[in-house]
Amino acid sequence: MSAFVSPRVDEKVTPLAGQRYSYVEGLYCPRCAAEYAHQHVQQLCQCGSPLLVRYDLEALKASWSKADLASRPWSLWRYHELLPVTSPDAVVSLGEVVTPLIELPVLGADMRLDNLVMKDEGLLPTGSFKARGAAVGISRAKELGVTHLAMPTNGNAGAAWSLYAARAGIKATISMPVDAPFITRQECAAAGASLTLVDGVISDSGKQIGEWVKATGHYDASTLKEPYRIEGKKTMGLELAEQLGWQLPDVILYPTGGGVGLIGIYKALQELQTLGWVTGKLPRLIAVQANGCAPIVKAWQEGARVSEFWERSHTHAFGINVPKALGDFLVLDALYATGGRAIAVSETAIRWEQTRAAQLEGTFVCPEGAAVLAAARELSTLGEIGTHERVVALNTGAGIKYPDSQSFHVDVLDKQSAIPTAGFTTASGDSHERT
Amino acid sequence: MSAFVSPRVDEKVTPLAGQRYSYVEGLYCPRCAAEYAHQHVQQLCQCGSPLLVRYDLEALKASWSKADLASRPWSLWRYHELLPVTSPDAVVSLGEVVTPLIELPVLGADMRLDNLVMKDEGLLPTGSFKARGAAVGISRAKELGVTHLAMPTNGNAGAAWSLYAARAGIKATISMPVDAPFITRQECAAAGASLTLVDGVISDSGKQIGEWVKATGHYDASTLKEPYRIEGKKTMGLELAEQLGWQLPDVILYPTGGGVGLIGIYKALQELQTLGWVTGKLPRLIAVQANGCAPIVKAWQEGARVSEFWERSHTHAFGINVPKALGDFLVLDALYATGGRAIAVSETAIRWEQTRAAQLEGTFVCPEGAAVLAAARELSTLGEIGTHERVVALNTGAGIKYPDSQSFHVDVLDKQSAIPTAGFTTASGDSHERT
Repeated sequence: MSAFVSPRVDEKVTPLAGQRYSYVEGLYCPRCAAEYAHQHVQQLCQCGSPLLVRYDLEALKASWSKADLASRPWSLWRYHELLPVTSPDAVVSLGEVVTPLIELPVLGADMRLDNLVMKDEGLLPTGSFKARGAAVGISRAKELGVTHLAMPTNGNAGAAWSLYAARAGIKATISMPVDAPFITRQECAAAGASLTLVDGVISDSGKQIGEWVKATGHYDASTLKEPYRIEGKKTMGLELAEQLGWQLPDVILYPTGGGVGLIGIYKALQELQTLGWVTGKLPRLIAVQANGCAPIVKAWQEGARVSEFWERSHTHAFGINVPKALGDFLVLDALYATGGRAIAVSETAIRWEQTRAAQLEGTFVCPEGAAVLAAARELSTLGEIGTHERVVALNTGAGIKYPDSQSFHVDVLDKQSAIPTAGFTTASGDSHERT
Repeated sequence: MSAFVSPRVDEKVTPLAGQRYSYVEGLYCPRCAAEYAHQHVQQLCQCGSPLLVRYDLEALKASWSKADLASRPWSLWRYHELLPVTSPDAVVSLGEVVTPLIELPVLGADMRLDNLVMKDEGLLPTGSFKARGAAVGISRAKELGVTHLAMPTNGNAGAAWSLYAARAGIKATISMPVDAPFITRQECAAAGASLTLVDGVISDSGKQIGEWVKATGHYDASTLKEPYRIEGKKTMGLELAEQLGWQLPDVILYPTGGGVGLIGIYKALQELQTLGWVTGKLPRLIAVQANGCAPIVKAWQEGARVSEFWERSHTHAFGINVPKALGDFLVLDALYATGGRAIAVSETAIRWEQTRAAQLEGTFVCPEGAAVLAAARELSTLGEIGTHERVVALNTGAGIKYPDSQSFHVDVLDKQSAIPTAGFTTASGDSHERT
């Protein structure tokens, strides 16, 4: 493709002279402290915990500065030193733009929050934040020689991993609940993934994928069963810190299913602290769940370190319908450490807030994003978020992936009919009476 | 929102010291050459032609350089001198990122094109390129004091304009065909637009909106009936020129319904020529339509200056189901002037190419984008695009907005079942026999 000069967003970023592309150092277990090499495929720790990626932050601190970022493309690869992919040649990209922070002054005023912004992850490839984990996870899998991966999904992750796997030339075996959003099924199938549906929830998919992986020996890309997806999600934290001029907000709200994004944001902020790029208190991290599936909320209320399986879970915010998360203890650690909390919201509140945001701000968020906004409203009412605090809400995907989340009545006219003018005020100020 | 420093993508760009934010000079008619002031609402020319925006390019040439762009956010507002909005305070934004140019080496090889890239407009707010026209069109409408607008739509434009109007505090009255993509209906309704469906095609919607505008005196935001939407679409041309290092490609393929994007890209490239930022021959512009609705193709084949109404039009690539475009003569002018052409593709080719692109490159394009890729394949086969030519395909929206564009069979398993391992090769190379 040498005929093309400098496409910006998906441009490859090459290492600075004499420096490493990635400062990845190894893998470690956050539960039992065992260490693993990152040069080979690793799944869970032998103790059953997810593994996390460690970077040589001291070396990086000496050789990297914020100014180095200035000329880089506005994609998540601008932070390649803090990502596990060791060469630009391994990068598998569909154009992961830095997602905008959208100011929400009208909706903010409506819930008495003066400084409410939303990071809109719906603008990523595949229409959800799952593209971050897939871009980094698939790039790293490709670098490690993986040829076939498998995973359970509530929809968006499977769609993203199927499409990025296709781009990387990796085969994908995916299982999702039969009730998962229809369009995500279409994305997996179009990408050529081997897809099956299960008449159950994501933990049933997880069980089937676990057995399939055991039988075939292929790569298990389930949430937190490989260490690299979280590194992709981490870039949400890196981006928002840079977008806010390295001045961290007071509160970050995140819709919590598997919780990888929250764990990732927390890890990003800690790494930035170690680099000295951010200082002071970390934001209070708030895990938002639905009343119909709130295991993290229950655990937080009880001051527990881990959550219990949530029976008969249900919510139309499908991405947070996760009855038991493998990384629950990491999520809870982050909430306790930052003085944050967990909160659940109702199905009605989610639906109402989704429409409210669209009408007041023109943003059509996904139900999970609407849950976060509903939680912000509730916490403002409770006085747990102050009016002048700086609040970041994560909208994890585009509302367009959930066409059936709302039910609206719309009139159908035949060609000969006229659109009613009754009830409208004309441009000159006259009022048509509604008849 | 002063507590937040420097959010990047939706950051306001302020004018350079002593310079104008916009170099808009006025409006002119490309058919009869009449001139109009841009300081008031203007719809069509009195001769019935759309109006175009003229900029003071000579003054701009003296005061603006490519280097001025370097530090600006990667949104379409980085080109504000060439946009009609006269103040940054009027900008209505939902985070219009510069969309990535995605290299398609595998799909390109599959159709014998060595240099095929796709500009992926699916990453814009609302999931389609319609966000460009809405962002600029609504910003300008707000600046002109518009309080209520109306428009017919095939779906995506109505969705974008409804949501941007909500953000601007402008009311919207929308009509769309009952067969338009369901999710776009939901977007309009969620945004609080006054929406009606018509049992017909977009020209039937157009007729009803025309009558409604006549009765109420409100702003007609129909395609090309106001001069500013095209200026938003123009940014596709500005972006791709900059992304390619100001070296224009040989060919640009565009899915053509109303044709505003093609007219806009052509206008952008001409303006860049006048500024001296690009030189040499313009790319051949290629208008892609569907066999079931190909009025521009028919006109081009006949060497005509205008198209004729296409009776009983039909295609599942709904955005290009436009039987007669108001700006047809401008589209045809651009094709003739650049040595381009028009081409129609079949419904089968569109469906096949959509899946092919997903499987080979991981990009899930909309049917209109798939039509463009199918056309590239056909023109390569015909020898009308050379193997080594540099080709840009416009994917105008995300595939996720069209969940029903494909039909896939997917097996449903009960919880107790196992995902078949038959037919899979294990990681260690053993082959499970398919039974």
